[in-house]
Amino acid sequence: MKFTINRNLFIENLNNVMRAISSRATIPILSGIKLDLTDTDLTLTGSDTDISIEIKIPVNEDLNVESTGSIVLPARFFSEIVKKLPGKDFSFEVKESFQTQIVSENSEFTINGLDANNYPRLPEIPDNAAFTISGKTFREIINETQFATSNDQTRAILTGVRFFFNPTNIKAVATDSHRLSQRTIALENGPQAETDLIIPGKSLQELARIIGETDPEVKICPGDNQALFVIGNLSFYSRLLDGNYPDTDRLIPTEKTTSVEFDISELSSALERASLLTHAGRNNVVTLTLDTANQTAKLSGKSAEIGNVEEDVSFRNLEGNDLQISFNPDYMRDALRASVTDSVVMSFTKPLRPFIINPGKDDIEFVQLITPVRTY
Amino acid sequence: MKFTINRNLFIENLNNVMRAISSRATIPILSGIKLDLTDTDLTLTGSDTDISIEIKIPVNEDLNVESTGSIVLPARFFSEIVKKLPGKDFSFEVKESFQTQIVSENSEFTINGLDANNYPRLPEIPDNAAFTISGKTFREIINETQFATSNDQTRAILTGVRFFFNPTNIKAVATDSHRLSQRTIALENGPQAETDLIIPGKSLQELARIIGETDPEVKICPGDNQALFVIGNLSFYSRLLDGNYPDTDRLIPTEKTTSVEFDISELSSALERASLLTHAGRNNVVTLTLDTANQTAKLSGKSAEIGNVEEDVSFRNLEGNDLQISFNPDYMRDALRASVTDSVVMSFTKPLRPFIINPGKDDIEFVQLITPVRTY
Repeated sequence: MKFTINRNLFIENLNNVMRAISSRATIPILSGIKLDLTDTDLTLTGSDTDISIEIKIPVNEDLNVESTGSIVLPARFFSEIVKKLPGKDFSFEVKESFQTQIVSENSEFTINGLDANNYPRLPEIPDNAAFTISGKTFREIINETQFATSNDQTRAILTGVRFFFNPTNIKAVATDSHRLSQRTIALENGPQAETDLIIPGKSLQELARIIGETDPEVKICPGDNQALFVIGNLSFYSRLLDGNYPDTDRLIPTEKTTSVEFDISELSSALERASLLTHAGRNNVVTLTLDTANQTAKLSGKSAEIGNVEEDVSFRNLEGNDLQISFNPDYMRDALRASVTDSVVMSFTKPLRPFIINPGKDDIEFVQLITPVRTY
Repeated sequence: MKFTINRNLFIENLNNVMRAISSRATIPILSGIKLDLTDTDLTLTGSDTDISIEIKIPVNEDLNVESTGSIVLPARFFSEIVKKLPGKDFSFEVKESFQTQIVSENSEFTINGLDANNYPRLPEIPDNAAFTISGKTFREIINETQFATSNDQTRAILTGVRFFFNPTNIKAVATDSHRLSQRTIALENGPQAETDLIIPGKSLQELARIIGETDPEVKICPGDNQALFVIGNLSFYSRLLDGNYPDTDRLIPTEKTTSVEFDISELSSALERASLLTHAGRNNVVTLTLDTANQTAKLSGKSAEIGNVEEDVSFRNLEGNDLQISFNPDYMRDALRASVTDSVVMSFTKPLRPFIINPGKDDIEFVQLITPVRTY
């Protein structure tokens, strides 16, 4: 195996494959990156078993093949070495006993490689149920829901986002049982058959990063317990979660007795100040007091040790019953960060019943729900 | 105690005082910041006993005094709160039982304060031996020597930089017994009497940060076991180290049998690549091989697990005996970073004797010394 490649081209692709490689690999060979060279392309593969990423770099004027072959190299070191090499290009040659020589200008590294035959094979996922969506839409819906997944592996199903893809839209919902986020976005070319996938939050985070700020096409191939996402020359494999996802529709209240609209940036700043104290105390809880007769909205928080804070928050359209409700300010912060409008409308029923947060615009299908905290 | 102040003015001064406050204060009141308000100024004080910083903000249109007094507030929270307040100004009022109210626009904090009478007093340092030097010069000599101090408290004297101030120059020297850095810079108005101070490295790091990129005058007042540094409205008190500093002059070799000149940026890049492997292995050692007959200079490093690296380094004026010498690449990296020229000249005697690094220009009095490592 011997080739010469443009270093920047290689690094760009390497950085994406590195996203799949864990620094705490359970199987030693998975701390490595696999390189397979054929006459047509160089394939880089990384995996932590939950996520696998494979990228094909086609042979062209920036990639010169002398002889084909495969090798696995220690990913972290290999990546740091390539990034620090002095030249525009580097040459790569596997010698005896998997010793790999990397040369760029006056710098020559010899790295101990591993036999690529011992690297696990990626699953084969048929593309008969495949469909294509806009990367921008997919990234947006991930960013609007993934944060609400649970980190608790004891109820593993909640660590994923549940997606419903159908011919005209995607609906995604995530909940950690304390808060919930549900978003629906129209699709132009959804799948013919409704497709229901529960994708781990961590896979979605990495997918959103790979999609980035551009709008590539994402081809989704659902498999039995894996899904494949193809973005350009990159193939992203994710484990799927299997089990009974809770029926979230029945959790969302349909009535309201108090409602109010807040400017997101103003409420976020007030929450951030209140959190300075509540994060220091034992109870990370703020209290929102809505007085409809006097038309006031106050947010307060305290820490027995440090002190207390009270914020007068400005608002629009405060209507209904007076209300005092307490909640975790971090859930509210996450909900506001995920919001896509400048303002949100909150609808409440009782102090101990979940309340909902909707965008300040009617044409956006986005519901967030937060369960309050009992403070007495 | 009651005042109103411009928030940016306050934050700017607060940030400097915070440098003296440790997050792991041994005396609880020292996790606080002291505020003293008189009719003429507001004084902020922070201390970790090794370092104390006092800043006076004069009363003017940005600082409005209603009543004088003193208070101690939890430094970290107070600082975060002030930074996140919504308004251009804030008002500050100490109420009953040291409860302090901070108000800015619609935000109102009440913080539990402490009695300022329990805050330790700063030392009184006479200024009869005081002298003034350029902040730029002081910062430069700190950056050129402080990195070579020891972190090992068992030989505490080496955790400081030894300064000799005299009417025409400053000489500073630091060593951790493995490497040494000694720099001499001309002074315009040095002290009349030679002044010898051993200042803790940590104090110097903070002083250098406070001096910043500008060139303020620094007034140095040497005391018995403390020194005071006055920079504008800021007074910086540092503990001095007391004890027998080693006679470093006799450590610096005066002969050489091999010498070579390297470009700093090229040698630094080669060292950085070699360190990728040596940092991974048990021995953090690189080997420099100088062949005067063939006129080659090679830098090599290895890690039994990962592999090895060899760099051909370009050079000028390689003269004398052939030499193979091994050393810690981190000491060389630090020495090169502290260098003020584009190239350095290295002078060697034997493979196990310390070697010296001088600037590529003759008119700069700067000597660095590194002790090699035995590798066999």
